[in-house]
Amino acid sequence: DLSFDPKEHQHLRYNPLRDSWVLVSAHRMKRPWAGQVEKPPEEHIPRYDPRNPLCPGNTRASGEVNPSYDSTFVFENDFPALQSDAPDPGSDQHPLFQSKAARGVCKVMCFHPWSDVTLPLMKKEEIIKVIDKWAEILEELGVTYPWVQIFENKGAMMGCSNPHPHCQVWASSFLPNEPAVSDRCQRAYYQKNGEPLLVQYAKQEAEKKERVVVENSDWLVVVPYWATWPYQTLLLPRRHILRINELTVEERDSLAAIMKQLLTKYDNLFEVSFPYSMGWHGAPTGPHLKEDNSHWQLHAHYYPPLLRSATVKKFMVGYEMLAQEQRDLTPEQAAEKLRNLPEEHYKTREN
Amino acid sequence: DLSFDPKEHQHLRYNPLRDSWVLVSAHRMKRPWAGQVEKPPEEHIPRYDPRNPLCPGNTRASGEVNPSYDSTFVFENDFPALQSDAPDPGSDQHPLFQSKAARGVCKVMCFHPWSDVTLPLMKKEEIIKVIDKWAEILEELGVTYPWVQIFENKGAMMGCSNPHPHCQVWASSFLPNEPAVSDRCQRAYYQKNGEPLLVQYAKQEAEKKERVVVENSDWLVVVPYWATWPYQTLLLPRRHILRINELTVEERDSLAAIMKQLLTKYDNLFEVSFPYSMGWHGAPTGPHLKEDNSHWQLHAHYYPPLLRSATVKKFMVGYEMLAQEQRDLTPEQAAEKLRNLPEEHYKTREN
Ligand SMILES: O=P(O)(O)O[C@H]1O[C@H](CO)[C@@H](O)[C@H](O)[C@H]1O
Ligand SMILES: O=P(O)(O)O[C@H]1O[C@H](CO)[C@@H](O)[C@H](O)[C@H]1O
Repeated sequence: DLSFDPKEHQHLRYNPLRDSWVLVSAHRMKRPWAGQVEKPPEEHIPRYDPRNPLCPGNTRASGEVNPSYDSTFVFENDFPALQSDAPDPGSDQHPLFQSKAARGVCKVMCFHPWSDVTLPLMKKEEIIKVIDKWAEILEELGVTYPWVQIFENKGAMMGCSNPHPHCQVWASSFLPNEPAVSDRCQRAYYQKNGEPLLVQYAKQEAEKKERVVVENSDWLVVVPYWATWPYQTLLLPRRHILRINELTVEERDSLAAIMKQLLTKYDNLFEVSFPYSMGWHGAPTGPHLKEDNSHWQLHAHYYPPLLRSATVKKFMVGYEMLAQEQRDLTPEQAAEKLRNLPEEHYKTREN
Repeated sequence: DLSFDPKEHQHLRYNPLRDSWVLVSAHRMKRPWAGQVEKPPEEHIPRYDPRNPLCPGNTRASGEVNPSYDSTFVFENDFPALQSDAPDPGSDQHPLFQSKAARGVCKVMCFHPWSDVTLPLMKKEEIIKVIDKWAEILEELGVTYPWVQIFENKGAMMGCSNPHPHCQVWASSFLPNEPAVSDRCQRAYYQKNGEPLLVQYAKQEAEKKERVVVENSDWLVVVPYWATWPYQTLLLPRRHILRINELTVEERDSLAAIMKQLLTKYDNLFEVSFPYSMGWHGAPTGPHLKEDNSHWQLHAHYYPPLLRSATVKKFMVGYEMLAQEQRDLTPEQAAEKLRNLPEEHYKTREN
């Protein structure tokens, strides 16, 4: 009888935040790849482009003129998926044709006045400004809206249509699917185990070490045991924190430091500006501010698509869409690769 | 007060098969697109390529030689994600580090001996052969495995690494997430309403007409009320059928006909070989063959990524991955577009 080796033997792993399973088939990395090759990201982005609506001083689609900002800059999305005044589709519906009102607001936040930088290339002090602004927006929109989704699509491969460093914030009158499932899972775990799921998880991973990518006294980055994307990571505080606006000055400083470390490693992996979608999840807001949300723990998810090189990504397609997500290397292998990468960015090394 | 118009006003729609919601923001189609443009699919694929492992008579990675097949041809995937003999990771695990054994088999099925055809360009009689083979494989692997996932990734954009017309079959020792959720939803609906969810749904849609793309006496194709992908469709029988091997000779004939119609419309939409992932869902097999599965209804899902043109797809990224899926045109608009397209393929029209 063979003894089990996760690198050689396919198996399922449980995602306790989504109550779902992922198929890990690490032996699949051996197959040759003859499929689609992506365009590598554009390398020479001008620092200032007079036609780019995100640059300081330029005019946007709405006719509004951007200020000559020198740090972060927030404005309302000119083509928002959520508007604050949509009418209600009404009730009294057949169970197979149910709709609901959706209201909200969509904002865009530029990280920096220059188009040719990204978070890992920014100074720690500049990243702190981004974190401060995230906290401010969450607090502001969280007064009204039950969910404030802060997210960044980085790179054209992740649907980002503007190279200027920026993220988005979509606040909604409803709790979206993903946080709703996560809320349910964290609540059930807390009720059963008396400690928040992700607080316990961070402790365990800090001891086990094998999935840790980088850590400091306040934060921990791991490739989660249940990661679906090849180099997916989970950024976790060690302390129990419900929302991003509760971070202390010291925690914002150490968060900026660990983000810079993680994102530098990402860029160094294939020596390319690493595409990803990332976002923050914390306790719900609006009417939920008055509830007990002790089961929640603040965290950020990073979902990068690249698998084999700067131009070959993992396709989450047929089997993944219709049956179950599947990954081609173990989370431990991915963590080890990222952990061993240098913390100096390949672009600054070249100079 | 404004009255509600689904084309103008964002709203949520409920997916009763997944117990989740989708955000419909049709007014977003107005925004200009400056993001990634895909490579259009290769146009000149040779009928026979001596280096293509899927062509008749060629040698595959395993060293095996394909027969000179003249219809469909099935073989075991040379780089399978599921193997029949993986050892068990063992039990007695921490709730945050749970794994499970996964066993199975992965097959590849060529649709046709020629590399330069696709399903819509094949004759109805040839498509019937594909359907017969699907039924045969389901029956064969369904003896052992609880789930037999038949799926097709079409086009490089959907991770397909070989232009030869083919699909895959992954059979597993476990019920994967997607069918597990669908099983739960269909069961609950059946218990509450006394009729299978999708049987009732097909009747309703056949009456309402606004989301019907094409129909015949046995089958119905709709853009479902809860579609997430821009031109997603659901292929449904009118009769209550648990699994694909239960189809009568007449139903296989009418299925081949409606598949040809649908896929021709897809290709005609942007005059390109339309990329998609598709797959069949029916009642589970293996040990479930002995259970009452009356709540199930056979169906196929088509998930095509294109949104605006042959080269601009919908990105399911940041907000979709972290919060909730979002679409940019209404299912009714998509159905109307597809419905009004000609049923003669643009390639045969040109000749
Ligand atoms: O086995 P293939 O066709 O090479 O692989 C394709 O389909 C699989 C099943 O959906 C995916 O896991 C792969 O990412 C994709 O490239
Ligand atoms: O608003 P953007 O950045 O143009 O759009 C991008 O992010 C959105 C939110 O994840 C997605 O819905 C779009 O498909 C994507 O292209």
